[in-house]
Amino acid sequence: MANVTPEMQLLCKEREKVSFSVEELTNILDGNKEETAIRRKVENVIANDTSMQHRNLNHMTREERFSEAMRRTLYALKVLLPREGWTPVGPEMKYLARAIKEFTFIIHAGVFIPCIMSYGTNEQIAKWFPLAADFRIIGTYAQTELGHGSFLRGLETIATYDRANQEFIINCPKITAMKWWPGDMGKSANHVLLMAELVIDGKKYGMHGFMVQIRDLTTHEPLPGVTVGDIGAKLSFESVDNGFLYLQNVRIPRENLLSKLSEVHPDGTYIKKGNQRLMYGSMVRVRVNLIAHEIVMPLAKACTIAVRYSAVRRQGLINPSKEEVPVLDYVAQQHKLLPQVATVFMAHFAAKQLVKMHHDYSLEVEKGNTSQLPELHALSAGMKACLSEQGAAGAEIVRRACGGHGYSCGSGLPFIVNRMLATCTYEGENTVMQLQCARYLIKCADQAKKDKLTGSVWYLSDFSNMSCTAQTFGDLQEPSVLVKLHERRAKCAVQHAGKKMQNMVKNGTPAHDAWNMMATLLINAARAHIMQYVVGTSVTYISELSCSASLKKILTQLCALYALHNINSNCGDFVKFGCLTSAQCDLAQEAEFNLLKQLRPDAVGIVDSFDFTDDILQSCLGAYDGNVYERLFEWAKQAPMNKTEVHQDSYQYLQPYLHEGRDVLEGRGRNSKL
Amino acid sequence: MANVTPEMQLLCKEREKVSFSVEELTNILDGNKEETAIRRKVENVIANDTSMQHRNLNHMTREERFSEAMRRTLYALKVLLPREGWTPVGPEMKYLARAIKEFTFIIHAGVFIPCIMSYGTNEQIAKWFPLAADFRIIGTYAQTELGHGSFLRGLETIATYDRANQEFIINCPKITAMKWWPGDMGKSANHVLLMAELVIDGKKYGMHGFMVQIRDLTTHEPLPGVTVGDIGAKLSFESVDNGFLYLQNVRIPRENLLSKLSEVHPDGTYIKKGNQRLMYGSMVRVRVNLIAHEIVMPLAKACTIAVRYSAVRRQGLINPSKEEVPVLDYVAQQHKLLPQVATVFMAHFAAKQLVKMHHDYSLEVEKGNTSQLPELHALSAGMKACLSEQGAAGAEIVRRACGGHGYSCGSGLPFIVNRMLATCTYEGENTVMQLQCARYLIKCADQAKKDKLTGSVWYLSDFSNMSCTAQTFGDLQEPSVLVKLHERRAKCAVQHAGKKMQNMVKNGTPAHDAWNMMATLLINAARAHIMQYVVGTSVTYISELSCSASLKKILTQLCALYALHNINSNCGDFVKFGCLTSAQCDLAQEAEFNLLKQLRPDAVGIVDSFDFTDDILQSCLGAYDGNVYERLFEWAKQAPMNKTEVHQDSYQYLQPYLHEGRDVLEGRGRNSKL
Repeated sequence: MANVTPEMQLLCKEREKVSFSVEELTNILDGNKEETAIRRKVENVIANDTSMQHRNLNHMTREERFSEAMRRTLYALKVLLPREGWTPVGPEMKYLARAIKEFTFIIHAGVFIPCIMSYGTNEQIAKWFPLAADFRIIGTYAQTELGHGSFLRGLETIATYDRANQEFIINCPKITAMKWWPGDMGKSANHVLLMAELVIDGKKYGMHGFMVQIRDLTTHEPLPGVTVGDIGAKLSFESVDNGFLYLQNVRIPRENLLSKLSEVHPDGTYIKKGNQRLMYGSMVRVRVNLIAHEIVMPLAKACTIAVRYSAVRRQGLINPSKEEVPVLDYVAQQHKLLPQVATVFMAHFAAKQLVKMHHDYSLEVEKGNTSQLPELHALSAGMKACLSEQGAAGAEIVRRACGGHGYSCGSGLPFIVNRMLATCTYEGENTVMQLQCARYLIKCADQAKKDKLTGSVWYLSDFSNMSCTAQTFGDLQEPSVLVKLHERRAKCAVQHAGKKMQNMVKNGTPAHDAWNMMATLLINAARAHIMQYVVGTSVTYISELSCSASLKKILTQLCALYALHNINSNCGDFVKFGCLTSAQCDLAQEAEFNLLKQLRPDAVGIVDSFDFTDDILQSCLGAYDGNVYERLFEWAKQAPMNKTEVHQDSYQYLQPYLHEGRDVLEGRGRNSKL
Repeated sequence: MANVTPEMQLLCKEREKVSFSVEELTNILDGNKEETAIRRKVENVIANDTSMQHRNLNHMTREERFSEAMRRTLYALKVLLPREGWTPVGPEMKYLARAIKEFTFIIHAGVFIPCIMSYGTNEQIAKWFPLAADFRIIGTYAQTELGHGSFLRGLETIATYDRANQEFIINCPKITAMKWWPGDMGKSANHVLLMAELVIDGKKYGMHGFMVQIRDLTTHEPLPGVTVGDIGAKLSFESVDNGFLYLQNVRIPRENLLSKLSEVHPDGTYIKKGNQRLMYGSMVRVRVNLIAHEIVMPLAKACTIAVRYSAVRRQGLINPSKEEVPVLDYVAQQHKLLPQVATVFMAHFAAKQLVKMHHDYSLEVEKGNTSQLPELHALSAGMKACLSEQGAAGAEIVRRACGGHGYSCGSGLPFIVNRMLATCTYEGENTVMQLQCARYLIKCADQAKKDKLTGSVWYLSDFSNMSCTAQTFGDLQEPSVLVKLHERRAKCAVQHAGKKMQNMVKNGTPAHDAWNMMATLLINAARAHIMQYVVGTSVTYISELSCSASLKKILTQLCALYALHNINSNCGDFVKFGCLTSAQCDLAQEAEFNLLKQLRPDAVGIVDSFDFTDDILQSCLGAYDGNVYERLFEWAKQAPMNKTEVHQDSYQYLQPYLHEGRDVLEGRGRNSKL
């Protein structure tokens, strides 16, 4: 791979025409120059540590990937970190996940430990946290059951208090009560933070968290009464041992009820302590954080791969008398890729704002104030749902835009897409999340009839003029116009769903049935709310950003593209609700086409700013130098199927028939066959 | 798995309330009772033949799946067929693919052999066909190159005529000219039907088909000058050896140019023979046939799984004072599943009509008449693109509607979805197909200004009143209204794109640039055209069908649901173009909700009519008896990760740290650790 191929030349030329400083944009995405430097240092250390390298994941079995992820994760945490002097609270930690690629203990580190901190007393934290933080116990958070997901009250596992022994007896009364799905549970964990119904003297007290040891500390064998294992192959997450756990008369000491919010005295007295709302805090936190790591980052990777590849893949003619063009010159291709690139930025800005809001909330919680929880819950649930939906759809669009090679694992795209699809389901199934967001919106819209609202729903009590006065496509690229349009559409969508339900109730339908029947309108309202939030916060963020004029121009264009793509993809709503006329819809399309044209020359520069190393991207199509075809060929040659020229396992079946063919073609006659 | 679980009871109850004869619907889908009987016989023979069984595909490596598919395919064709007395032209053949599940030689049987028949002289057919039909040679069709896909003129492989030796010398001049992707090529094929640029005395004569032997007939090793292998892992098709093929100075005899349409005389004289349009026939044929096998059938499987599972999966409350309900009772869930069920039927009816049209065309071709090719090409290209898009999206919607368990390979859904995604790319990338369809439509719309059109585009010259007079949601369930609406929308979409381009050209934009800039409108026009075709042909098919009244009612409802779901998902177009008012859009939504409600009680019966055996479905969620949870547990226990209680490979890394934890928890102190 020494010579400069035509593809490499094309990518060089693309980079020559970029109108802004890629490095400046990278710094903005990272936060500032210093953060970029820390991130690069971490990525560099990991890329250059031979123990952190792995074979091609696509050529490994699930079991090999699982063991390999375990090896690398433990090496990173227990060897590399201390060696580099990086501490768990240091600035390097947040870049580890990006650098390590496939790693494990996501639930142990991301849910089990935080839950100990949230639900445990100081004494419990003092006992369990140091062990967990140091990986001297491995734990997981066991809530979901084989037969029960989002509906918490439906969970069947019970913890019965045995006063005589001061123990809880844990049982899964039926097969459907078996814990199912928790990551790290199948083979790694020796403890679980188990959610179970607390029962004292036959009385139910609702869901509580219990620390349950499930494997022997010396042999790692399951303890008596514990049936535990891996739930089998999934669409992705090959390296994670999502598990099942069936508990029969497993006894744990009374002290293992995590007792920050409620406790059971030795005599069986049940005491509630503190604000029960704190129970929801950890779910909100997980959703807030997953947007950056599991939606924005993988979508940015997918866009990097697809844009670079589209800049070097030449196919077909635009002008019949000229040469073949890079597919990125096709407007249809730009229309697939650039709105997804724009989504990366706007989701990033909106997620930043949500993280800030969550941070402010956490400070308030410490003062005992949880009044912001309903808004934060609605926003984080809705945003997780809508952005995971947009992100997964976007990644699939760009994968498909890479044609046949996008279907090859060598592109790196199948891995990204299949993993992103999970974000639509885990940590709150999207439809459930959208309906919870909608419930908040309907309540607020009702309140807006009397009160002026503030915060993320302020626009529901904004009664200013509804009509859009845009007369040219240029008018429709104005940030203020785009924000207004999104607010109006969201308000109409919420009001429309609310009104429909009211009418049904007026006509005698029970409210819960009306809610069910109007579910798709409610989901639409939640989506509209989140889109206006993303557009609104992004516009504010960009306008307040201090950066070069050339960069501000690009970001403003990307923001307008995101907004216009939303409008054009949902123009039914905008027209039906009277936010746009048919003629204005036409202008909105023109405005989007115009932005595609303006952004085209900077496309490669924009994805370069995401600053993914080739080592992190793991893509033959997306590498920085554009040498796509030689890389694909080299990658293919390593496939296990190519270990030998003749694949003996399959050839044994084929050989007798092919030798018959030989005899005919070489005129040997059937009798001479081997 | 002996007891009747609550889930099994639920499915029994669903079946009690079905309002029509499931068997009658099955017969209609198969064609008639006799066809159903033949299909069941084939499925039965294969399900009960121990040699046709296989281990769980999800627990096998790609290499094992490849060898296993080879074994089973050859066994079926060479042992089972003759034993059962089934011949290659018998009625059983078309059901083999459905029954065998994972098989190989799709390209050998589906493209290589038909291409020999299409492009070969009688003499060539006599030589190659019997060998290929009998699997005594294995061939593939090698067109796509590493650097070149849909744009045929861009292909770089050349076949230079060597007069002295009466041979062609085949070369891939660059790495980008390497053949890439052909199925069965990597490890199985010993011949390829190679598409290459014919060169005689330095003059280029365009793409021609050559029979090229690539592997030794005795050893199966690649011949000198041949570099061949597998292209590596893909999103699906684990059992297929899609291959690469790099040819350097490979010589083949002059007779190996397939010469039905053109030949090269010994002295190098090039002669065109017959209608060159016949070249396109085989691509059309492949697209026509893949709709039934690769879109309708897998989508039907996915719907069967998701509907049955949704009928037994209980989660959450609709009425807060009642019990948990099956998720199929949620309108949001019905709105995800039932339109996909409807798509199965309408795509099936439309595909039937397309197959008939192709059959009629084939008869005309035999008389030398290829005048129907442009229409057939546009329709088959557009339909392949639009239905593969709808099908793949629909399968993913129903997969996601199964929540977490839909992400497990045990559901069978990841396998179906990932395979269906390929249909969007292979046999003509969808965007390219849609634009080819649009080019035909724009041409027809132009012609419609002067002439009355017939056939599938007749509506472009229909100038009757545009407005819809529907006043109730019932009006919008009328088949004739729905057909009209789709025709009007399609006509407007085609005209809109055409007018936009005309204006640009008038203002000085070159026509090819206008085409490029309006690509997304043209794609929209192609989609609109296909939707009207599917709705129109389905309405006609159902109205002409002789069947019981209860069944006709169901089919009419499904057809209306398909049409209304299209309208509501694209209502921007319908409103913008003045086909519907805002108020009518509201009615269209109500009409869709109403149909969901009407179809809900028959949902399980409808998917039962697809008549997939558990053996074919390979799904823990979709089995006929509804015993979802025990099946998932049994399936998970078989996972390779669960072979031992302690997964030693990974535990070796974890053990030292866990033993530290043990020492702390058991109070041994750090010094006593193992």
